[in-house]
Amino acid sequence: MLLDSPAVERLVDAFRRLPGVGKRSAERLVLHLLSAPESEARQLSESIATARARITTCSQCRNLTEVNPCLICTDDRRDGSIICVVEQPAGAMAIEKGGMYRGRYHVLHGVLNPLEGVGPSELALERLYARVDAGDVAEVIVATNATAEGEATALYLSRQLGQRSIRVSRIAHGVPMGSGLEFSDEATLSHAMEGRTLL
Amino acid sequence: MLLDSPAVERLVDAFRRLPGVGKRSAERLVLHLLSAPESEARQLSESIATARARITTCSQCRNLTEVNPCLICTDDRRDGSIICVVEQPAGAMAIEKGGMYRGRYHVLHGVLNPLEGVGPSELALERLYARVDAGDVAEVIVATNATAEGEATALYLSRQLGQRSIRVSRIAHGVPMGSGLEFSDEATLSHAMEGRTLL
Repeated sequence: MLLDSPAVERLVDAFRRLPGVGKRSAERLVLHLLSAPESEARQLSESIATARARITTCSQCRNLTEVNPCLICTDDRRDGSIICVVEQPAGAMAIEKGGMYRGRYHVLHGVLNPLEGVGPSELALERLYARVDAGDVAEVIVATNATAEGEATALYLSRQLGQRSIRVSRIAHGVPMGSGLEFSDEATLSHAMEGRTLL
Repeated sequence: MLLDSPAVERLVDAFRRLPGVGKRSAERLVLHLLSAPESEARQLSESIATARARITTCSQCRNLTEVNPCLICTDDRRDGSIICVVEQPAGAMAIEKGGMYRGRYHVLHGVLNPLEGVGPSELALERLYARVDAGDVAEVIVATNATAEGEATALYLSRQLGQRSIRVSRIAHGVPMGSGLEFSDEATLSHAMEGRTLL
């Protein structure tokens, strides 16, 4: 028991709920916040509340945003005919950092997972279909993760969207840039071979 | 720029000030807090404020505590004749987890570091001397870290306290339990040889 204090225990528990934070890391973070200048703890506490209050989900693409619709959905320079479907806001942000993609997004906030009760309605897939049906969407790029659930979701989406006259594509999976064959697992290498392109 | 939101940027910055949290980890934590149920973010925010408000430093040993003096300073079963000096509250907690030490503590909240302007008065060393002078202290165990600053602080304390008629000791440095010689660096092995004890 850290400091024999229920308040401290609750703070450790709150930190442990964050991704990648175990018991020891949580305790280290808590001790830091308790030892650091009071302003540092106050800033973190207030920043969480403020950010959480300001950020909402875009009514169009469901990405996190401070303005609704989000800056990507309202940016005329973005290509509205391409929608990239991602599991989480973090995925859209990762693609944005690359700076190469000029279409728009659709964030599922999850993947199909029948065992955990996540079906098409939990992911609000009808909102994606509505976007596709509403306008001049030419292609949907499914960029769900390369996990079993991500692949299953991609397959499901391709079937549902395949009934419409649009292109449905999946991002490539293979050996990461800068990496070698010897660092890739069998499934990745198998995908890399299957997805080979002509030189 | 994560989400083009100043509120989110401030939250990322607040997380980055925590030990061991870099830019990418901070962004991942922030995205989690913004996507997670609102209650999770609120709990973390409020727990920080509550813990920080409840926890103070013990007026005797300067450890973090919810009651003052702390539970260790007021525990009659602890041996008041031994004081273990540590740099940070985390050090005292690490020793408490072992459960072997039955004396009391003194937390410096830092180490001597003249280049960064940390001298004896910044560490309030006079409060340690006062404790020693006030009563029946027989031994001070210096458990500052095995860094250059920690060693220098230990040496300084041993000189200052050596003028009193008490024992001043330093915790042993050597090969960690469960580890082998081949995993230890030269300085550790050198210390392990010097600190050898008769079997």
